[in-house]
Amino acid sequence: MPRQLEFFFDFMSPPTYLAWARLPEILARSGASVIWRPMLTLGLFELTGNRSPRTVPNKAVYGQADLARFARRYGVTLNPNPHMDTLKIVPPLRGALLALERDEFPAYARAMFEGMWVDGENIGAADVWPRLIAAAGLDPEAYREGVERQDIKDSLRANTEEAAARGAFGAPSFFVGDSLFWGQDRLDFVEEALMEQPA
Amino acid sequence: MPRQLEFFFDFMSPPTYLAWARLPEILARSGASVIWRPMLTLGLFELTGNRSPRTVPNKAVYGQADLARFARRYGVTLNPNPHMDTLKIVPPLRGALLALERDEFPAYARAMFEGMWVDGENIGAADVWPRLIAAAGLDPEAYREGVERQDIKDSLRANTEEAAARGAFGAPSFFVGDSLFWGQDRLDFVEEALMEQPA
Repeated sequence: MPRQLEFFFDFMSPPTYLAWARLPEILARSGASVIWRPMLTLGLFELTGNRSPRTVPNKAVYGQADLARFARRYGVTLNPNPHMDTLKIVPPLRGALLALERDEFPAYARAMFEGMWVDGENIGAADVWPRLIAAAGLDPEAYREGVERQDIKDSLRANTEEAAARGAFGAPSFFVGDSLFWGQDRLDFVEEALMEQPA
Repeated sequence: MPRQLEFFFDFMSPPTYLAWARLPEILARSGASVIWRPMLTLGLFELTGNRSPRTVPNKAVYGQADLARFARRYGVTLNPNPHMDTLKIVPPLRGALLALERDEFPAYARAMFEGMWVDGENIGAADVWPRLIAAAGLDPEAYREGVERQDIKDSLRANTEEAAARGAFGAPSFFVGDSLFWGQDRLDFVEEALMEQPA
């Protein structure tokens, strides 16, 4: 069995964006593959009794400074998104499941992550999401229809519930086998855990 | 002005213990000195609307695994403390202020941190705290009297309030000038910030 990493992610989480941006180098070094697991972080918070760090004002201010430090260290562009309070993240996350099914995940994920954390887009808005999908060279109509499928809706919910059941409480969450790692700042431990698996 | 690091700490926080254990190497490399700032983390939580990660069950379980990973990486012994739910941490923290005044801080801090996170002691208990102080070669009676002083009590409260006012929300918190760093896992950024100051 080859090295595998499960990545529970949500486009609305800026540390998850940083983790996504750094993932290619970790996969290149370890030879691991990723199992992409979109989940609804707000649902995970509800299931686990956790809450967004943004609910603590000092933590919200510090969190921005902290992420900016890491972005600088990594050489990754990270801009605050002005639409956090009204963001509709469910369609983009369901779209990620569809993108996996359609073998279009890399282009779709890049459009969502960079729309969110580089370009400051309101990525879930009805007039924005299709535009971003089209700009990525994908078919907005297929996505608009696909995210209404019951099995896609169920799958997002199931991922979120599975994350909670396996011990996660926030995003990003990584699993190497049964070992959980939380946070973009734990990717070094993730890589160590991957290297301990047979190649 | 030489390089200086303010360290807001609480003996009851295991990541703070890890930070304390690693501090000597960072000070040695940077030539910085430490301003020790005992604070009451539970008071800081109250002032800032934060709460202990232990209130979220998944986070509590993960937190232990995460700290164990760092302890292994650092080569530092860290054992869970069985007295967390009944711990009386205020006398030990007031004692830290007295130890600073008496120029006995290194021995006192080591007794408290290692009593807490190596030996699993109930460090605030009336029959334990004096024993640990005596074992460190210090005078339990002086501490027992000293922590009743109003200025010592006020000073602990003032440190906690200052931490909140300057943007902190948990332990450990470091300041290099006005820049806040939170967590034992941010000591690399702390060291970078110190190195940017004139030596």
